[in-house]
Amino acid sequence: MTPSPSSAPTISARTAGVRGSAIRDLLTLTARPDVISLAGGLPAADLLPRERIARAAAEALTDPGAVQYGETAGLARLREVVAAHETGRGTGGARGPVRAADVVVTSGSQQALDLLARAVLDPGDAVVIEDPGYVGALQVFQAAGARVVPVGLDEHGMRVDELADRLAAGLRPRLVHTVSSFHNPRGVTLAAERRRALAELAERHGFLVVEDDPYGLLSFDGPPPEPVAAHGERVVRLGSASKVLAPALRVGWLVGPPEIAAAVELLRQGADLCGSTLTQAIAADLLADHDWFAGHLDTLRRAGAARAAAFTGAVAELLPGATWSRPTGGMFCWLELPAGTDTTAALPRALEAGVGFVPGSAFAVGGALPSAARCCFASHPPEVLREAARRLATVLAVPSGRGRST
Amino acid sequence: MTPSPSSAPTISARTAGVRGSAIRDLLTLTARPDVISLAGGLPAADLLPRERIARAAAEALTDPGAVQYGETAGLARLREVVAAHETGRGTGGARGPVRAADVVVTSGSQQALDLLARAVLDPGDAVVIEDPGYVGALQVFQAAGARVVPVGLDEHGMRVDELADRLAAGLRPRLVHTVSSFHNPRGVTLAAERRRALAELAERHGFLVVEDDPYGLLSFDGPPPEPVAAHGERVVRLGSASKVLAPALRVGWLVGPPEIAAAVELLRQGADLCGSTLTQAIAADLLADHDWFAGHLDTLRRAGAARAAAFTGAVAELLPGATWSRPTGGMFCWLELPAGTDTTAALPRALEAGVGFVPGSAFAVGGALPSAARCCFASHPPEVLREAARRLATVLAVPSGRGRST
Repeated sequence: MTPSPSSAPTISARTAGVRGSAIRDLLTLTARPDVISLAGGLPAADLLPRERIARAAAEALTDPGAVQYGETAGLARLREVVAAHETGRGTGGARGPVRAADVVVTSGSQQALDLLARAVLDPGDAVVIEDPGYVGALQVFQAAGARVVPVGLDEHGMRVDELADRLAAGLRPRLVHTVSSFHNPRGVTLAAERRRALAELAERHGFLVVEDDPYGLLSFDGPPPEPVAAHGERVVRLGSASKVLAPALRVGWLVGPPEIAAAVELLRQGADLCGSTLTQAIAADLLADHDWFAGHLDTLRRAGAARAAAFTGAVAELLPGATWSRPTGGMFCWLELPAGTDTTAALPRALEAGVGFVPGSAFAVGGALPSAARCCFASHPPEVLREAARRLATVLAVPSGRGRST
Repeated sequence: MTPSPSSAPTISARTAGVRGSAIRDLLTLTARPDVISLAGGLPAADLLPRERIARAAAEALTDPGAVQYGETAGLARLREVVAAHETGRGTGGARGPVRAADVVVTSGSQQALDLLARAVLDPGDAVVIEDPGYVGALQVFQAAGARVVPVGLDEHGMRVDELADRLAAGLRPRLVHTVSSFHNPRGVTLAAERRRALAELAERHGFLVVEDDPYGLLSFDGPPPEPVAAHGERVVRLGSASKVLAPALRVGWLVGPPEIAAAVELLRQGADLCGSTLTQAIAADLLADHDWFAGHLDTLRRAGAARAAAFTGAVAELLPGATWSRPTGGMFCWLELPAGTDTTAALPRALEAGVGFVPGSAFAVGGALPSAARCCFASHPPEVLREAARRLATVLAVPSGRGRST
């Protein structure tokens, strides 16, 4: 039967293939005031620099230009500040400083990822993503009609050896996506020698690495890891102000080869014309205020380290049999419960007990991950995290035996 | 020859088919301080409510939630305010009030257009757009891989009779896009009976009308035109705060059937997660401040009417042989110079003489429009517009005979 002309409007085949974010749906459930939510990937509300932002907003709004349309590639001053910041991170490597012209400002790094996928992918192109992986990347690659190829992770980040094997066997991806530092959801960081190897594979096989790095600055011990982009030209780096300043600025950026930056800028014309001049001016002000920003980062790092320690300490004590990678930065702890635990099935009971998390299966790209859970430790102070672990323990009952850090 | 693996990264076939906005490129040229630019579609800087925005920003930033991530479909309060506003405009028609749940907030109405195109179009689908047309729509439909079908405009807006003929002859578009009020670039407004006819054609032939209406509130004489959406359910309405509040808020919205709103919300997760909670809070504050907003709109309308009159008056006097539709709202005057005039060729001379405009050819979808020019009268006070017309006259020399308004 053919549909009648006045039937409900239908959505495109491409859209029908996009999986909604189970996490976003979960956030509604975990927003109940009696639930301690470890589900969101939200920066800690108590550590967001709201007063500094208010000062920057008042200052920016003395300029009539702050409320007008802006350039598609971003506010010139912000591009300069980001270029200097990325240069300081080591992004340019031996190639020298990052130029403002290499930076395209986007609405969070999520928009950079989406525009990049649209700029370089044709339907059917192969894209490698980590498994478990960042759901926002999976959505973007599905929407672009790509063929998603999962590659595993271990405690040193992406299994670059596994990728090399796949490439040797004939895999020809256009993009290889990695959350290189303090992985979402896995919490791990790509080891230095793997960063070098990944950049070399990109040169040899002609793919682009997408180095998605919103958490890199939130390193608990020592300086942030050196970017993959330091090791080669076929790396597009995505950065974000959401985790180090505030998500509501909607400021992210892409640093990449000129052809890529130009294509992303072109597509942004159609995607939303430009970002907010006001929030970009605020971000530029805060990032350029070096002493303030260094102090603010220090606060975030100390608080993150204390929260991670409080949470994993409580888990070790209260959830015997669970394993996890000790967080060294970022926001996430990936719990693995003993085989046989079903975290998806346990979630309703957990919410009843007053604690929320994201079941591992939400991040599964290839196989299932029934006994894992992503817990965000960044959003709550230590005492609340200990209470969260206590509540978790009441529902994620495990056989006897002591938990251990891997 | 196959490309070597380490060759420059290439962009996708889809991206290669997207035409850059000649207007955006022009903005760079016309940004010289000695040039009076009629090229941009910018609200008047002197009329942007910067101080009211600063007050709203300070107030919003007393709430910790203002700097955090927000819901993908938009800030609840803004969705309510927009629903009430659209209800007041008549968008619901006989179906009753617009509900907050029918509203998806986007990053300007451009993002609504982009997400809508991605949500409903499969490659090869036919899409009708007006000719001359809004360049941002053309870009979006090209990026979605659509087959763009131009339909003409006259002084009463889209030639709906021409569309009806094409439909009778077998054309089956998924979308029909119209800038229904104070058209960009043509300046004209879709007549009331054509609005009704267009909504009826959508019901009969099963397409969706995209009613792109950023300018409707800027009506110089009498109330804003009744929306096309008042006449049927197969209309997706796009609105924007950019022209009535400020572009830097990056607040636009989509009001449409539930399946469409849900698909757009889903795609927005991948596109940029959510908009800025801060700028949405500011927009909600200003739109909900009824007395202030009514007074502000009144100021914009009076200033727009005075500017349009000053510009067309000067053109009538100084550019004999030119014709135009008398602007009754919005921002644009579409000049048609006598046959033989080449506005593209004249532009460099115009810039030399200190005035910028956009040649008609930049808006051409089907044929060429060599002798037309879009002039934005909104951005400058009357005396500057008269000077702009004087400079235009020095380069767009035309045969004798008096200009006339059509």
